[in-house]
Amino acid sequence: MASTGHSTAATSEMDEEKEAPPPQDLTLGWVRDALIRQEDSIVFALIERARFPYNAHVYDPSLLPQQGGRSLVEAFARGAEVLQAKFGRYQNPEEVSFFPDDLPPPSGIPYNFPEVFHPASASVTVNNAIWNMYFNDLLPLFTVEGDDGNYTSTAAADLVCLQALSRRIHYGKYVAEVKFRDAPQDYMTAIRAKDRDALMKLLTFEAVEEMVKRRVLKKAMVFGQTVTLEDKTFDDETKYKVDPAVVAHLYDEWVIPLTKDVEVEYLLRRLD
Amino acid sequence: MASTGHSTAATSEMDEEKEAPPPQDLTLGWVRDALIRQEDSIVFALIERARFPYNAHVYDPSLLPQQGGRSLVEAFARGAEVLQAKFGRYQNPEEVSFFPDDLPPPSGIPYNFPEVFHPASASVTVNNAIWNMYFNDLLPLFTVEGDDGNYTSTAAADLVCLQALSRRIHYGKYVAEVKFRDAPQDYMTAIRAKDRDALMKLLTFEAVEEMVKRRVLKKAMVFGQTVTLEDKTFDDETKYKVDPAVVAHLYDEWVIPLTKDVEVEYLLRRLD
Repeated sequence: MASTGHSTAATSEMDEEKEAPPPQDLTLGWVRDALIRQEDSIVFALIERARFPYNAHVYDPSLLPQQGGRSLVEAFARGAEVLQAKFGRYQNPEEVSFFPDDLPPPSGIPYNFPEVFHPASASVTVNNAIWNMYFNDLLPLFTVEGDDGNYTSTAAADLVCLQALSRRIHYGKYVAEVKFRDAPQDYMTAIRAKDRDALMKLLTFEAVEEMVKRRVLKKAMVFGQTVTLEDKTFDDETKYKVDPAVVAHLYDEWVIPLTKDVEVEYLLRRLD
Repeated sequence: MASTGHSTAATSEMDEEKEAPPPQDLTLGWVRDALIRQEDSIVFALIERARFPYNAHVYDPSLLPQQGGRSLVEAFARGAEVLQAKFGRYQNPEEVSFFPDDLPPPSGIPYNFPEVFHPASASVTVNNAIWNMYFNDLLPLFTVEGDDGNYTSTAAADLVCLQALSRRIHYGKYVAEVKFRDAPQDYMTAIRAKDRDALMKLLTFEAVEEMVKRRVLKKAMVFGQTVTLEDKTFDDETKYKVDPAVVAHLYDEWVIPLTKDVEVEYLLRRLD
């Protein structure tokens, strides 16, 4: 380890999977690589949240009367978004706030993010649906019951999960934009007719979806295993930090459908 | 996925590696399991930071004049610690603040964390050393040069790394406490003589340290690989998101020595 300066070992990997803003000549390959990389982030975030038990107090709006009926996680997430907005997080059109009404203007370091999205479509958000899905449906499936007092760390871990899911799902805007650019004629009739079903059909590739589900299941197995110095193979006895079936279910039931909702909403505004 | 209610699949894993506050009958086995689990968190955090290029603007104190000479990452970390302190993060003695002088009192949900640490030793901190090591030494080794404008997300990812490293290194307090309780006579002479070298020698087990380094190297390979649906093996051509040698170097050069510094400082105050 005599090397100084920046890492070069990871360069080719980074080239394949970089998450920098896409070039104006956006390609479906670029978007797919970014989506694949974000699967890792989502699995890591779930595993890190699963370090803590459910910690029901975090979600009970009656326990923080000074927060005006907001649960600890909601009060924390709002505070974290205010802080992050101040330093410019939401200048990047990939980042979508859960509580956009209360954000201060950015006073951080300016950066000129490329305008890739069609202006009328850029503001599409399904963050309310993501928030409700995460707390009502997903969280109980991958946490164990219990209370260890780490309420702030739990809320922070929830926010990392929510932000990773939100970024992934709102990448549907890139998917929609690149598909529209590649074949505008295919979409225009359905957009003009406001035909959501036709758009959904144009955007659905079941074989690809099946592959994504199988890949995230495998990632949950690889990243959620207990790594020891002994070699071992996966078998029925292997315990994972997050049940891989839950991660596949997350994609099947929510991530993929919500992404397509974003794509449809984006396209419906694409000619405005 | 018809199951409702809380996950049971992960229960036995959680029992092995839980990070809840330890019982009063603290054991070295419990502490070691927690340290092993935290290796995963550190590797995940480094991989997630490596999604972004170095982003030098984040570390340049001249770019945010309204922050009084603080870089974006410092201003962000201070703001995040204030927010987290308010909701109670630092009520847990495992969590050590980087900027403890500016924290508000907690106004979150109270929790009675067990008092495990000797009171005179509980406040030991090496967070200044961790902060300087992370930014001056470690960060350039695992990020690629470049600027993608994601300054807030970069700073947030840095803070996740710093907090994971800080928690791991300050777990030295548990290590020191359990070793002292197991054999107080072995340590008392060196503590009374304020003999740091003798304490360091008592706390050093090279075979264990070698095993830890080999294990984190392997974790960086497993968690930092590109998982595809095809089976594959690790070879010289495999690209990792963070160079596994850097992770082993991090443990060798900084995590293990700083943990032992915490242990020595803890023990020096253990009879006060």
